[in-house]
Amino acid sequence: MDASRVKLFRLRQEPFHRPAPPATITVNPIGYVHNEIAKPMPRGWEEVESQIELRPEHCDRAFGIEGYSHLIVVFYMDLATAAPEFPEQLTLKSGTTYGILATRSQLRPNHLGVSVVPLTGVERRGKAVVLRVRGLDAIDGTPVLDIKPYLPEYDSVPGAILPSGS
Amino acid sequence: MDASRVKLFRLRQEPFHRPAPPATITVNPIGYVHNEIAKPMPRGWEEVESQIELRPEHCDRAFGIEGYSHLIVVFYMDLATAAPEFPEQLTLKSGTTYGILATRSQLRPNHLGVSVVPLTGVERRGKAVVLRVRGLDAIDGTPVLDIKPYLPEYDSVPGAILPSGS
Repeated sequence: MDASRVKLFRLRQEPFHRPAPPATITVNPIGYVHNEIAKPMPRGWEEVESQIELRPEHCDRAFGIEGYSHLIVVFYMDLATAAPEFPEQLTLKSGTTYGILATRSQLRPNHLGVSVVPLTGVERRGKAVVLRVRGLDAIDGTPVLDIKPYLPEYDSVPGAILPSGS
Repeated sequence: MDASRVKLFRLRQEPFHRPAPPATITVNPIGYVHNEIAKPMPRGWEEVESQIELRPEHCDRAFGIEGYSHLIVVFYMDLATAAPEFPEQLTLKSGTTYGILATRSQLRPNHLGVSVVPLTGVERRGKAVVLRVRGLDAIDGTPVLDIKPYLPEYDSVPGAILPSGS
């Protein structure tokens, strides 16, 4: 049996071996938030109008996005990395204690934000694309890591249950 | 006027200056997906049962999460980084062309996945926490970057509009 046949045989027998997942991950902003909110605030985001300016190299990747009424915006809450403390748990006003991952706090590991927002307009200025959205809870300058179309079939669970006191 | 008074005066007058946002961002997996799906597949995820094993240092951060029926899982599609091509746009079966950011393709920049899944169980094994979920579209070994409780008030938009041919 020659070497190539041995190799073929092994290929057929061996399952797909998944490469080891990375231990740390580097991501790059695809754009930045522009709005009038200079500092983090705990509430009051509903009426905030923001522009997400995509980096020029990503503008062709937004083709057709204006057909969707809502977007999922993934962003990096970079100011939260400088918080004086990173508590593992928070006690809410209700008196109930939750782990950070059971809240939407910015003090979570990795400081990733995920928000669903209405897309109110798309402007193309040469190679630049600006997405206008309402209610994005991210301050001016926030790096945006991803934009996804909101698909109700997958993303909407109107009857999802919350614990009391959450 | 001594130096400390000058400094105080300046602090009062100057507005909050936002530190420059980072140009690249490093994040660390908070856990990994375990399931029977070894290779990426385009569909058929609905009934896939997965376990998300949190790293021991994050287990106290999941306290109370069992009160929520659904989670938002943010994950890193690490195998997609080795794709042979990264097209800016895709033409769907309908014949309509969309930019990658107007699809949910893994070939998007940063390869971040965001999926809403039912939480079917939480197991605590000493310091380890395992979250059982159904329908997560991530293969075995996928790094998880964040877990968030699903809050219908913010996250559910049943009437969101999609373009025809999407």
